[in-house]
Order: sequence, then structure tokens, then C-alpha cells
Amino acid sequence: MTKPLNVALIGQKFMGRAHSNALSQVSHFFDLPLKPVKHTVCGRDEKELKAFAARWGWQSYTTRWGELAENPEIALVDIGTPNDMHAEQAIAMLEAGKHVACEKPLAGTLADARAMHEAAKRRKKLKTFVWYNYRRVPALALAYRLIREGRLGRIYHVRAKYLQSWGGKDTPLLWRFQKKHAGSGAHGDLNAHIVDMARFLLGEEVAEIHGAVSKTFIEERRIPGQEKKGRSSVDDAVLFLASFKGGAVASFEATRLAAPHQNANSIEINGEKGALRFDFEDMNLLQFYDASHGLREGGWTRIMCTSAGNHPYAEAWWPDAHILGYEHGFTNMLADIVRVLCGRTPEVPLPDFADAYETQRVLEAALLAARNRCAIKLSEVE
Amino acid sequence: MTKPLNVALIGQKFMGRAHSNALSQVSHFFDLPLKPVKHTVCGRDEKELKAFAARWGWQSYTTRWGELAENPEIALVDIGTPNDMHAEQAIAMLEAGKHVACEKPLAGTLADARAMHEAAKRRKKLKTFVWYNYRRVPALALAYRLIREGRLGRIYHVRAKYLQSWGGKDTPLLWRFQKKHAGSGAHGDLNAHIVDMARFLLGEEVAEIHGAVSKTFIEERRIPGQEKKGRSSVDDAVLFLASFKGGAVASFEATRLAAPHQNANSIEINGEKGALRFDFEDMNLLQFYDASHGLREGGWTRIMCTSAGNHPYAEAWWPDAHILGYEHGFTNMLADIVRVLCGRTPEVPLPDFADAYETQRVLEAALLAARNRCAIKLSEVE
Amino acid sequence: MTKPLNVALIGQKFMGRAHSNALSQVSHFFDLPLKPVKHTVCGRDEKELKAFAARWGWQSYTTRWGELAENPEIALVDIGTPNDMHAEQAIAMLEAGKHVACEKPLAGTLADARAMHEAAKRRKKLKTFVWYNYRRVPALALAYRLIREGRLGRIYHVRAKYLQSWGGKDTPLLWRFQKKHAGSGAHGDLNAHIVDMARFLLGEEVAEIHGAVSKTFIEERRIPGQEKKGRSSVDDAVLFLASFKGGAVASFEATRLAAPHQNANSIEINGEKGALRFDFEDMNLLQFYDASHGLREGGWTRIMCTSAGNHPYAEAWWPDAHILGYEHGFTNMLADIVRVLCGRTPEVPLPDFADAYETQRVLEAALLAARNRCAIKLSEVE
Amino acid sequence: MTKPLNVALIGQKFMGRAHSNALSQVSHFFDLPLKPVKHTVCGRDEKELKAFAARWGWQSYTTRWGELAENPEIALVDIGTPNDMHAEQAIAMLEAGKHVACEKPLAGTLADARAMHEAAKRRKKLKTFVWYNYRRVPALALAYRLIREGRLGRIYHVRAKYLQSWGGKDTPLLWRFQKKHAGSGAHGDLNAHIVDMARFLLGEEVAEIHGAVSKTFIEERRIPGQEKKGRSSVDDAVLFLASFKGGAVASFEATRLAAPHQNANSIEINGEKGALRFDFEDMNLLQFYDASHGLREGGWTRIMCTSAGNHPYAEAWWPDAHILGYEHGFTNMLADIVRVLCGRTPEVPLPDFADAYETQRVLEAALLAARNRCAIKLSEVE
Repeated sequence: MTKPLNVALIGQKFMGRAHSNALSQVSHFFDLPLKPVKHTVCGRDEKELKAFAARWGWQSYTTRWGELAENPEIALVDIGTPNDMHAEQAIAMLEAGKHVACEKPLAGTLADARAMHEAAKRRKKLKTFVWYNYRRVPALALAYRLIREGRLGRIYHVRAKYLQSWGGKDTPLLWRFQKKHAGSGAHGDLNAHIVDMARFLLGEEVAEIHGAVSKTFIEERRIPGQEKKGRSSVDDAVLFLASFKGGAVASFEATRLAAPHQNANSIEINGEKGALRFDFEDMNLLQFYDASHGLREGGWTRIMCTSAGNHPYAEAWWPDAHILGYEHGFTNMLADIVRVLCGRTPEVPLPDFADAYETQRVLEAALLAARNRCAIKLSEVE
Repeated sequence: MTKPLNVALIGQKFMGRAHSNALSQVSHFFDLPLKPVKHTVCGRDEKELKAFAARWGWQSYTTRWGELAENPEIALVDIGTPNDMHAEQAIAMLEAGKHVACEKPLAGTLADARAMHEAAKRRKKLKTFVWYNYRRVPALALAYRLIREGRLGRIYHVRAKYLQSWGGKDTPLLWRFQKKHAGSGAHGDLNAHIVDMARFLLGEEVAEIHGAVSKTFIEERRIPGQEKKGRSSVDDAVLFLASFKGGAVASFEATRLAAPHQNANSIEINGEKGALRFDFEDMNLLQFYDASHGLREGGWTRIMCTSAGNHPYAEAWWPDAHILGYEHGFTNMLADIVRVLCGRTPEVPLPDFADAYETQRVLEAALLAARNRCAIKLSEVE
Repeated sequence: MTKPLNVALIGQKFMGRAHSNALSQVSHFFDLPLKPVKHTVCGRDEKELKAFAARWGWQSYTTRWGELAENPEIALVDIGTPNDMHAEQAIAMLEAGKHVACEKPLAGTLADARAMHEAAKRRKKLKTFVWYNYRRVPALALAYRLIREGRLGRIYHVRAKYLQSWGGKDTPLLWRFQKKHAGSGAHGDLNAHIVDMARFLLGEEVAEIHGAVSKTFIEERRIPGQEKKGRSSVDDAVLFLASFKGGAVASFEATRLAAPHQNANSIEINGEKGALRFDFEDMNLLQFYDASHGLREGGWTRIMCTSAGNHPYAEAWWPDAHILGYEHGFTNMLADIVRVLCGRTPEVPLPDFADAYETQRVLEAALLAARNRCAIKLSEVE
Repeated sequence: MTKPLNVALIGQKFMGRAHSNALSQVSHFFDLPLKPVKHTVCGRDEKELKAFAARWGWQSYTTRWGELAENPEIALVDIGTPNDMHAEQAIAMLEAGKHVACEKPLAGTLADARAMHEAAKRRKKLKTFVWYNYRRVPALALAYRLIREGRLGRIYHVRAKYLQSWGGKDTPLLWRFQKKHAGSGAHGDLNAHIVDMARFLLGEEVAEIHGAVSKTFIEERRIPGQEKKGRSSVDDAVLFLASFKGGAVASFEATRLAAPHQNANSIEINGEKGALRFDFEDMNLLQFYDASHGLREGGWTRIMCTSAGNHPYAEAWWPDAHILGYEHGFTNMLADIVRVLCGRTPEVPLPDFADAYETQRVLEAALLAARNRCAIKLSEVE
């Protein structure tokens, strides 16, 4: 019988559900050397937590996350809390000898991120993971492989946009619009994803930010349950231009005010020998251009990335051409986490704290460029 | 605590997995008056079955389906076996007082289907269900509602096509290409879905088949594990033209040889006041046309059907704009089955044996039209 | 200096404009051995005709088409009149020794079409042409070449639809809805185009019609300028199923009631080695699938057919990637007509009366199948 | 009879053809108070010019552009020469009392552009025009009207990209890659168009450039007819971020190295009440989103902009749904030029020298931002 991997989870909201689902599903679909077990879930609201644990089949629950560090049964702690809590929790778990999987972005501030990165460096035997789950959408994992195989040749352009639309003027002053809780707005929430994706796909670091603009379109928002309005202290949109070390120029844009896009986590990459295009709203598709087909027959090819043996992760799921949804990226990632914990190779590389720290530096550099109205080299950002 | 609903499942292949998944997931996402329990799974290969039961968390397993009828703990029997076994199993379970959920098509022959339909009529207190799962894809459930609200007005045209491409000449002589096992080829497999879908969406019956053609393109196929070839005894494609009672003209096409379509279960409906279009390869989208927008601003509108409160089933899952996959249709259907068993209303109507029998009559009429090279009225088909 | 080719045109409505435009433009863009000259235009309404001649630069005009036959200066007579006039005019011009280019369909009745075909056979030295202009849309001419090169391999499926939407209940009882003038409705107007296109692309004849349905949805229409309504005597839609001699099965559909499609002259062809797809609403694009790219990278490729040297007719026009419009098909066709009159080879084959007569036979067979509610072999149609 | 408008044209290359075509076609399709006459064409290569004049029907030709200024018959001089010649020619023609239509961009340098703008101001009775022809693509003219009607509400985002792909490493060192002749690369060629388009659609000026990057990917190119390579002295791509005075943030990108895009002159605008999207590769389509349709039914609507009475310029051409091509924008523009010369109102505003000077200032500001690695306010650019 497969050996268990005891997992604890902190967080019972959106990400708590997404991670619980991955823990429930991974053994249904993947043949893995360890079987993840939903050992303990931790949250602040006990009543809600009890119901959550029952619904998702957690063996136990606690409202004190410190208990997880003390429990020798637990091997992996999964952190799905707000950004400002990541550092304290992750470092404590590392110190207690646990592997840690942390939601993205790595932290709310660069200082926190750096501390986490250093803590991970101190505990070399422990594995860290950051839930940049989109790397494990089959279409993007295929994109990664095509680039590694040299199918794009020299890369000229990256166009990465994460366009949402839920942040209109009728949306109230949630914690997501308050800097003290959220750190930033669309920038940390959405640009984090596309910076990770671009770095992952290119396999290169950003060298310079050429310019940036951060914009708060809706300056005041209704306070939930009150008559009066309060001030939004985060950005609604952040755009910036960058260069990668290999010379590609890139544009990044994150916004919550680009209706009718709802969840358009999208990227296009143009190279000398080919090009790639992806939009999460059509997540089972990769558009690929192979310049070797010539002008007569060349163009964007719509690839449905559901073919077992041909497309990453496809054979774990349904017969070919039965498409996947949002949560499958998390389940695919959990399968790779288990593989890595057993010394095996993931389908495509997993981001650890060191990797996610680089993404955080890019986000910080973009903010500096916006604030100082000038270009900035990444080497200037500690 | 929620009362359990003990379910038995017959079948451990593709549909066995899809149904086990729905049983595993439904209580994670839906708040239902009963909690489906994976009580007993039944299959023929015991070794495989044991592993299947362990993987999916079935409480027990058996290789003798007759035992399910005798077990008073089981309330619902779910049949996921080949078509030629549906009638015997379903009728036995109905006679034993079980609710029955049966995979589509209802049966391999019209005679079997009729017998099942009659058995269901005799046991009026029991509920029957047929797994035409696509009715519960949110985009199609929305399409159903729009038509019910009169948004298309009088309907002129239905164009339903189920286009696949796995049946090329290199595909060996699987049981799916043998009439004695499969009944038919693309016709029963794929036309069944789109006939059900068209009947469901229009809320009307087919009146006449105007003509049909059944085609076997690949007449001989390699026998697995042998040098020689064997004869395919089923259709690779069946096309037919029909009229609905309300006057709409319809074309249906099912094929396994329409590359690069892989799973293009698609339908378009044009009416006086609007139109709808769906393709399962983009299953989260409904294309809608509202003629009242006029020529200046009218056209196909791409609706992403993931908005809680606006689109059927959406609020059970993730926040808006996080798209669903293939298996969610089964989970949605199971939620509706549970609702119906508790006397509640499903999101959109569920097909029972009586309903699925009508689909079977349409399929039969199309075969007669192809064989006799003439039009045929549905009233001529018993 | 280039020698002139004196052309006469009968007709001053929509097709009169389209042909006059082609005559005006062809020498601007193509280098041809003869220069078409707008010699004489003929129409019934003299006042309107005079203005038309002035606007388009016709050297002279006449209201009596017989004069054209008598004028020795005229080499080519171009017929853009209603279908019921084609036979008389075309035969007279052939008898008078003129080359004839006739609008499609060849005639309003099969008898007329046969007479024209026979007249053409009697005058072997004269060239005849039928304005199936879509053959000369670059994307379709490319499709023709790809099929000739064997890129699709054995062909399994043809799906041809011409979907329009101008025929709603508010459209008055124009001559197009009167059988005595129009012959038929959508059938002769639209199915004529897609039958020609399918025959052209496959390079094969239809063997059998498997079934057909002809439908008049709007039975009464407002008579222009009157209170009362009159009866429509033509079809609004005709659908039929067919087989080609090589074994491909095909569906054809023509309708004036499929909003929001406006001019969706569309075709898809699936073969063993590849597939093609075209919709006139995106006329500069051909979707091509090459099965040799495999499941990993295969899919529909969007080819913009505007590359000089790679795509037919492209080099005559603008630099690459500057797209063409509706009327360019006529100009391209006129260039090919001139080439053929000089003994040169057209880019892709031009339809003559013999060719267009075959299309007419298919249309007739479909009508017979609809009327008799049975399949019919083409060999049964004279 | 319609009075003539004598036009002289300088230039016989790509733009010479496009303008000659517009002059040939405009009276075929538009009813105008003046009839443009192809009076004199001017070019440097006499042999080529003679053939050009014959092909396009120019009444006379000359190799000395100064003659045009002296000829009292000529009312409008149309300049289709390289950018560095615009100022001298345009100013001379204005001084000679001619109306002037000049190709875009207004000039190769800001100083030239300013001189032209001042010359135009001095001759208030003369009209000037700049061939930003895309304003007159029906889809974009419709977009202009929808924004003017307030259908987008407050505008948040502009995303304008002009993506081409002909500038790969095999493309030789044409004059377009030499700064002394071309001024700049993709920037002046392509960003000029999308800056004009954004200013036109928003009806607002740019306030600030937040950052920019100019990139020459291919630094050396083959010299035509030689063994050796020469240095490219222009950009292959320029990207910049900007804000409009009304607060919208905008990104602009021009590149010649974004295969497989060939002529993707594209823009998307997201506002509070709606959104618009256009790509010249599908030039007959406008994608429109109307937020008032709600989440249940809202999304991008594909509008085919070919409906007479509903879409600008459509009624001049063919019946509804017969799509237009590249060159129609020029013909539409010429119709509007004639209207303006007669004191009538164009369909949508025409850019004059003053207007085009503002576009030139934005281009200059972007170059400064790239060079100085900092943000720059437009008020700092003279």
C-alpha cells in the first residue's frame, strides 16, 4: 500500500478550497509513490473551520497554526493565508523541519520575501514550493517544452497581460483594496502570475524595467455595511515595460478594470523561429506558430492540449479531447510536489522560494520605476 | 448531519471513473439534502476492480451485479456498462425497487429501450435517469433557459454535429467497431448526444426524417495482436436531415473521421429573435445573438458562462471566471439527481427513460431512412 | 501598346456594378495580353442606363440587347441579367460568334441550362464562362491547389453551408420570392455557389442525393407599396445530403434565415491527411490542418492568404498582408478570362457552360429528392 | 455634369498606387459634388512614370514637382513621397495656393512637422489632410461614433499594437532601415498609425509618456547586391506607456518582428460602460462589449460592419455583408476630402496638419523617454 504524506493546510477560503480539492483528487488520477493525506486544517473562525473540515474530509482541525509546527506527524505545511502572514508562518514551519508549500506571491513585501528565501537557504534539506499553479496548465507546460526545444529560436517579444474586470466602482472596499492587508492591488495579485510565467517560459531573468505606471482609477469605494466611502490604497492597474537578459523586450499589464475580460491571464511570445500564445479563458488551447511552415501555410495553429502522451499531464485525466478546468492546475502541481518530495522529476520545473523571490524583485523594480518615473536595472534592486 | 444516499455503480472503465469522480466531488461543492455514498462498485475483472475500489474509496465491491438488487442498503444503482447490458440490469434493479441512473444511449436496440421504458412506467415511484450529461454544461443549461424565455422566438434552423477524429485507418478493430457489441458506431455514440441536446433545447419532438446516409469509410481494421484484418460492422459516420414538430429544420452529423475536430459536440440554433451556438471544445462559452440589438450592434456575443447567480451551476464551483472541465457536467448532473430524489427541482430537466426512449426512436428512424433511401415520419417508428 | 478586348455587358444592377468594376480595375492590377474595354452596356431603363454608363465609363449604351450580337466590334458578351433570360441571350450571342460570360446559376431551369450547354458544344471555338466568382478568392484557390497536391488525402467529409439572414418576415415580396422570376429561392441563389465550390475543390462529381428538404418559413410577405400580403412561391432554405463519386459524404445547406450569419458562404472538408475550412465572412483566411504535424502540434492553422508568390492572385494587388474584399474575386476572374481568351492558363480552372450544367443537375436532383421524399442517383437526372 | 477637381500626385510607389486607385474608384461608388480628375502625376524615374501614368489613366506626367505648384489648373496636390521630402513639397504647394493631402507620418522630424503645421496655419483658406487612412475603415469609424455617444463611459485602458513580421534577419538593408532616409523604423511607420488612431478614437491628447524602449534586434543586414553587411540605423520595435489627459492609461507597441502577425494594426479600449476591439487583419469586424447587457449575457460581440445605413461608408459599396479590403479606406478618405473641399461634413473627422503635428509630438516624446530612460510630460515637448 502507498505510504501516506501527511499534509497540513492553513487557510479555508478560496485557496483553502482549491488546495483541499487537489489533495482529494490527486490520488484518484495520479499514480504516486506517496499518498497525500488531509491531516490537519487550520483557520481562524472555528465554526466555519469545523464545517470546512467535514466537507473536505480533513482528519482534524485547529485554530492555532503553531500546533502544526509541533506535530511530528506532519511532513508538509501548505500555506494559503493572506500575503502578510506568509513569512512568519513559512519560516516557523521551515525551522520546525517541515516542507512548505506557500501561496503566491511569495510575500507582501520584498523584505518578507527575502527573509523567506534566506530561511529556505538555511534548511537545504527541506523543499519549498510556491503555488504558481498556471505553470502546470498543460498548454503552458507544453509551451515551456517547445521553448526549451528551441522551437521559437531567439526571442524578440513577450506580451503578458492579466486582465480582469471585477474591480468596478460598485465593488466595495474589500481588504483587497487596502494596502496594509493586501500589499498592492492588481500588481501583486496578477502581475505576480505573469512575471512568473514569463520567467518560467523564457528560462531567463529580467534585466531592466524601462518604465511603469501604477493607476488607481476608483479612488473611493463604498465601505461594506456603511453609508460612507473609504479610500482605496492600492493600484487598480499596473503596466510596465521590461527587457530580459537575452534581449527580449516585454510588456506586462495587470488590471481589474478591463471588461469584458474576466480572467484573461494571457501571454504571447514571438521568436525568430516561431511564436506562442495563451489565454487562460481558453485554457485548454495553445496557439503555436512554426515559421518553418513558410508563408504559404504558416499561421497560428490552435492546439487542443489534451492528448495523452503528447501533452503534459493529459494522460492522468480523461481520454483525449476531454477538457480540463481551473482546479486541475493545482492537482497537477500537487502531483509534481509529491514527485519532488520523493526525489523524482516534475513534469516541468516547480518554483521554490528562491525562484519566487526573483519574481518578487521584478515586481518591486516595477513599483520603483512607477514611483520614480524612470527606468531601473534589476541589479539595483536588493 | 446530512443523511446518506447509498449508491452502487456497475462499470469500472471510462464511465466508471467519471461517475466515481462525480460521487466523490458532489458533496465538496454542492449543499444537498442527501450525501451520496460510494457503497458498492461492481465489475467483471476482480483484480482491477479491487484496485479501482481502493483508488476511488468505494466501501465494497462485487463481481456479481445481481447482489446489488438484493442489498436493501442500496437506494440508487448507477449503470455504466456497454449498451447491450443496460436493459437486463436496469429492469432488474427497477424490479428490485432501486432508482436507476443509466449511461446513454438508453440501449443498443429500440426493443431494449422500449422494454426499459415500460419497466420504468410500471414502477412509477422509482426515478430513472439517463446520463446525457451535456445538458448540465452551464453554457447549454443557459441556452435552455434562454430558449424557454422566448429569446430565440420561432426557431428556423438546428445544426447539430458531433465531430471526432480518433477513428482513422490505424485505429484497430476495437469492440466499438463490432455491431454485436456496440449496436452502431458514431450513430449511437455521438448522434445520441446531439439528438438529446436538440430535443432538450427545443423542448419539442422530431416529426420527420427527410433523408439519411450511413457510411463506413474504413471497412477493414487491424485486429489487435494479430497480423490479419477484420471487418468493421458499424458506421463511421451517420448524417441525417429532420424536421421538428414546430417546423424547424435540422441537420445532424456524427463522425469519427473529421480531424482536426476531436470532441466537437456542437450545435447552432437560429430563430426569429436570436440564435445560439455551442461547441464542447470551448465548453465554457455560449455564443448568443439577440436580434433586438439591431444590425448596427448585433452579432455573435461570446458569453463566458461562469458567473455565480447568472449561469446555472456556476456558484457551486469557483469564483467567477474560473472555468470548468469535462467531468463537471457529471457532478452537476449528480447534484440534480439528488435533488430530484428529494423532491426538489433540478436546475434544468433531467432525462428519464421515457425521455431517452424518444431519442432512441429518432436514431432508429434515421437508420431506417438511410437503409430504405427515403424519408420517414416518426409516427411510423414504434 | 496592349490590344483591346471589346466587352459588352447586359445588366446594370448589382452584378452590372460588380462586372463594371472588374472591367475598370483589371488593367490597373494585372499585366494582361489584352486590355478589356468597356464598349457597350445594355439595360432596360434608359435613363438609369445613361447614368450608369457615365459613372462607369462605358463608351456606349443600348436598351436592345440584340444589337450586341450584330456589332462586329464586340468580342465578349457579359450577361448579368435575371436567370430566366440567360438562355435566350447566351445562345443568341454564341450563334453570333461571341464569347460569353454568364452570371450564375447557368439558368433558371434545367432545360434552359441544357440548351445553353448544347449551344456551347456546337460552337467549339467560342469560350464560355460562368461567374462562379468565389473560385477566385485567393483562399479558395489555395484550397484547390492543396487538394490537387494530395494534401488532404482521401476525402471523407464535405460540409458546405451558405447562411444568410436578410429573408426575415419584414422583407417584402421582392421578385426573388416569386418563382416565375427567380426559379427558386435560396437554392438557386446560394446552393448553386456551394455546389460549384465543392465540385471545384474536390474535382469530382456528385453521385447521389441521399435526401433533401425544402422549406418556406415565411409563406406570405408584404407586397411593396400595398396593404395586402402575397404568397412567396420559393424556398427560404434547402438542405440536402449527397455523396461524391470518390466516396465523400457531403451536406449542403442554403438559407436566408440564419441570423446572425450574413454572408457565410462556408465550406469544410475533412480528409485522411488534412482538412480545410473557409467562411466568406473572413474571406482572406484559409484554415488548414495538416495531419502530419501530429497530435502534439496539430490543429487548425489560420493562413492569411495575402502573400505574393505564395497565394494565388496576391501579387497582383498590394504588398503582403493588405487584405482583399468582395469585388476582387470578380477582377481576378476577369484576369483569368482574358488569359483563357489568349490561350493562356488561368490560375485555377474557370467554369464553362458544360461545367455549370453539372452544378445545375445537382441542384435539380436535390429538388427531386425533396419533392419525392427519397434518395436519387445523379444518373437518373437528365 | 459634376465639376472636376484636378489633382496632382507626387509618388509612384506603393502609396502612388493606393492613391491612384482611390482617385479611379471614388466616383464609381460615391456621389460627390466634385469629380476628382487624375491631372498630373510626378515621379523621378521617367520611364517608370510613363508606364504608371498610362496604367492608371493620368492625363499627364512630370519629373519636376515644382511644375505642379505653377500649374493653375491643379487644385489639390497629393504627396506620397518619403518622409524627408514632405515638408519642402507641402510647404511649397501651400505657398502656391494648393490644398495639400500628405502621406503619414506628417514628417520625418518634429522640426519639419512643425514647419508644415505653421505653413498651414499661415494659409487658413487652404485645406490640409494627412493620410491616416485607417480612420476611415468602417469598423473604426463606427468605434469613433460609439465612443462619441458615450457608450464606453469613462475610459480606463487603451492597448494599441501594430505588429508586423517582415523585418526578419533575411530582409536586406532597404532604405527603411537607414535613419537618414526613414527617420525611424517601426516607430514612425507603425506607431504613427496607432497613436493617430488612439487620439482619434478617444478625442483626447496624450498627457505623459511613462516609459519607453526602442530596440534594434537585427543590427546588421545584408546590403542588396553585395557580399558585405551594413548597419541598420533604425529601431525594429518601439514600445511605450502613456496616459491620456482624461486619465486612461495606454500601451503602444510597434514592431516588425512579431510573426505570425503580418499587419495587425490593432487596438482595444476598455471603459466603464463598454469596450471595443479591432484588428486590421479582420478589418470588417468590430468587437464591441456593452456592459449594460449584464454578466449573464454580456461579452464581446462580433459586429460585421457592412450594413448600409448602420455602418459608416457601407452604403457606398456593395449590398450588406459583402466585405471591403485594404484600399477602400483610401477611397473612403478621398470621398471625405472632396466633401470637406466643398464645405460639407466628412463621415468622421479628417486629420489636418495641426492634428498630425500632435501625433508627431507624441512620437517624439516616446523617443525622448526611451533615450533618457525616464518619464516625460507632453508639455515638455515642443
